[in-house]
Amino acid sequence: MSKKTATASSYSITMRLHTSPDPGVVGEVATAISTAGGMVTAIDVAESTGRRLTVDVTCSAADAEHAAALQDAVGTVPGVEVHKVSDRTFLLHLGGKIEVASKVPLKTRDDMSMAYTPGVGRVAEAIAADPDDLHRLTIKGNAVAVVTDGSAVLGLGNLGPGAALPVMEGKAALFKRFGAINAWPICLDTQDVDEIVRTVELIAPVFGGVNLEDIAAPRCFEIEARLRERLDIPVFHDDQHGTAIVVLAALTNALRVVDKKLDTVRIVVAGAGAAGTAIVRLLLAAGAGDVVVVDIHGALSADDASLPPAHRDLAAVTNHEHRRGDLRTVLAGADVFIGVSAPRILAPEWIPTMAPHPVVFALANPDPEVDPAQAARHAAVVASGRSDYPNQINNVLAFPGVFRGLLDARAANVTTEMMLGAADAIAHVVTDEELNASFIMPTVFHPEVHHAVAIAISGH
Amino acid sequence: MSKKTATASSYSITMRLHTSPDPGVVGEVATAISTAGGMVTAIDVAESTGRRLTVDVTCSAADAEHAAALQDAVGTVPGVEVHKVSDRTFLLHLGGKIEVASKVPLKTRDDMSMAYTPGVGRVAEAIAADPDDLHRLTIKGNAVAVVTDGSAVLGLGNLGPGAALPVMEGKAALFKRFGAINAWPICLDTQDVDEIVRTVELIAPVFGGVNLEDIAAPRCFEIEARLRERLDIPVFHDDQHGTAIVVLAALTNALRVVDKKLDTVRIVVAGAGAAGTAIVRLLLAAGAGDVVVVDIHGALSADDASLPPAHRDLAAVTNHEHRRGDLRTVLAGADVFIGVSAPRILAPEWIPTMAPHPVVFALANPDPEVDPAQAARHAAVVASGRSDYPNQINNVLAFPGVFRGLLDARAANVTTEMMLGAADAIAHVVTDEELNASFIMPTVFHPEVHHAVAIAISGH
Repeated sequence: MSKKTATASSYSITMRLHTSPDPGVVGEVATAISTAGGMVTAIDVAESTGRRLTVDVTCSAADAEHAAALQDAVGTVPGVEVHKVSDRTFLLHLGGKIEVASKVPLKTRDDMSMAYTPGVGRVAEAIAADPDDLHRLTIKGNAVAVVTDGSAVLGLGNLGPGAALPVMEGKAALFKRFGAINAWPICLDTQDVDEIVRTVELIAPVFGGVNLEDIAAPRCFEIEARLRERLDIPVFHDDQHGTAIVVLAALTNALRVVDKKLDTVRIVVAGAGAAGTAIVRLLLAAGAGDVVVVDIHGALSADDASLPPAHRDLAAVTNHEHRRGDLRTVLAGADVFIGVSAPRILAPEWIPTMAPHPVVFALANPDPEVDPAQAARHAAVVASGRSDYPNQINNVLAFPGVFRGLLDARAANVTTEMMLGAADAIAHVVTDEELNASFIMPTVFHPEVHHAVAIAISGH
Repeated sequence: MSKKTATASSYSITMRLHTSPDPGVVGEVATAISTAGGMVTAIDVAESTGRRLTVDVTCSAADAEHAAALQDAVGTVPGVEVHKVSDRTFLLHLGGKIEVASKVPLKTRDDMSMAYTPGVGRVAEAIAADPDDLHRLTIKGNAVAVVTDGSAVLGLGNLGPGAALPVMEGKAALFKRFGAINAWPICLDTQDVDEIVRTVELIAPVFGGVNLEDIAAPRCFEIEARLRERLDIPVFHDDQHGTAIVVLAALTNALRVVDKKLDTVRIVVAGAGAAGTAIVRLLLAAGAGDVVVVDIHGALSADDASLPPAHRDLAAVTNHEHRRGDLRTVLAGADVFIGVSAPRILAPEWIPTMAPHPVVFALANPDPEVDPAQAARHAAVVASGRSDYPNQINNVLAFPGVFRGLLDARAANVTTEMMLGAADAIAHVVTDEELNASFIMPTVFHPEVHHAVAIAISGH
């Protein structure tokens, strides 16, 4: 068996073992796991009798196959019987990840008569008389709808609204953790654009903002555009604009490291979907001068009559020199590669054909366009979406602060200026002293970053 | 000025006073409030300097006019200046009454990789492979949508979805407090039946149940019927079925007090809207033999060709003797009056024309069909929707336990048998020893009542 390395606690299992009371057995179990490439994170003796120990061993595995291999390895230790195996990630999801809590006491009849009838009647009448009070006297002022149709769940595809729910719950938990915002999942049982738009419009009274999530392109563009026009609350498609903000922040700092300027570098963006399109538009707004977009068919060029409408729009504002060819061709001489496309489309050996001190962002999830470790042998700065390599580019750096700022300002729209400000705020949380090729992005736990983003948004 | 009596803390105000440092002044303020009919509930000295005291005085008023009168009374005390007046009910509503909380820790990168990407991807895939896991691994198993169109907000009328939001938030807070259920307000910006039905259908993947609330009749009947047919989760219109359950529970105990039987008493129900219709149908299912429904035009009788369709259905199953006439006429000789109609439609002096030991439920909110104190002079048992008289009939006794039971059982529907069981459970929380004419209903804070309802529901 080839050795796997366990890095992700997202695949952490707990095995309940029955063993002989011999104290040496537990050590042998730990060795067996370690030899099989697993990482032991906890050993708890749950019960001890004269005849038998009951031991809970928690360890990290690389994936399902690896977890099964670890279990087999433990089973071969003499005197050990694997009684039960549980998966920590699934245990964590039991009963869901979020809850609705009451902010008001409901201990006495007096409490009830203020929070509910008859007292609440006066509040309802006040809002009816002055709808402006809605933001102040209800959850609307601090509530965001996390809306999906389940058509593009993470990198996993069209899994539908139910399977999307744990992802939206996770997003809601992050909204609270980093933005102090009450977010609620809305997983729609339709993938019809008209129905999605109308439904979001109809449920909007409760919310101060709408975060669109995991909706497939090109449907997502029309839904967002129509909702922006119809609603008086901001609409933000995180897969587009959140990604664009963090990519611009990361590029800002990568260029600080290699001492190049955004308006003179040559940038190649691989991927012309939701994320790629939004990244390109924000890069251009930030002053990027030379951007070429590549998809599976090669470079997008305005003189290519075969392009579909959405790509034609993108080609019209990029690739001024009408370069043609595949990724390898247009990459030669480029300063920056930004991938939001598919696994392993970039061969590491192409990187030396780029301009000196190349910057490589390989953001396809969970498998990047190029292995970050291999890319780092050739590139000056490498970033990815993964938490197990340096320079993770993570949307969690943006969306909580973005909505915090929007809600604080009671903004009706997200503007390009706001997004540029947010990217700049994230970038400049990393000080000149901290900045280097392995540290271009702050951690999501940085005590200032979400606040800095909120200020940048609400100040615009 | 006629003296008002302050009973409702839903109208509690706090006045910030600047007074001379004379200690006697505070006493004079308390006396002034008391003389004007207010009730002082707290006096806090917020600041004291040699020259001046800053004092916060909290007191209960009967209504807005009374609150203004109390403020005037305090202003006339020599040496006192009323600096600011705030309303406790509005203060309590600032920022809304509910919040979304994360149930999972998000302190470390490990936490994030289990609750969000990449770990959550495996949970999404598991649900896609087996949709049955949705209840177990997400909030769906314990989440209820509280859905309104704002067309019949409390007794206040068609205030719209925004003004309905504080009421729905209060409901959600009660769901948590008494049922340990996560409820989220859905206030729809439409009053079109087709749109309401379709929207609830589209957002249903996130919820394990739907509570319809404050939707006007007759629209509410069609919405409920269509949703019950289309959804695989239970749909419950609290204004109908919740009210019916608590009324049947109260009547069960009132008849225990007067020693009469449901199948032989004559019952008059005033009001043929959502609540009246549901009450009548549940009473009949429970075995009531003689029910006459009265609306503003008089008794509903099957031989009256002028009735609208909804009333014709009701007349067909009631009033077997085809009684005609107004409330006063049909009330003569009746054992039970149940009002879910309008203020002051029942004159106290009609009650002696009823059968011996009459039972009077005057449930119109906030002003009952007859003043409960006056009714009590003539009736054996009197109940109302008000918390300031004995025997409050309160929906909060039913809906938290009803949904707790439905969710626990993963029921697809609410059945009549369940509702009968719930009413019986509420009634029998009151023991024979406790039961008397002034105590026919348990308090909502009773430690057992919600659990008893849940068991009655999930056991059917």
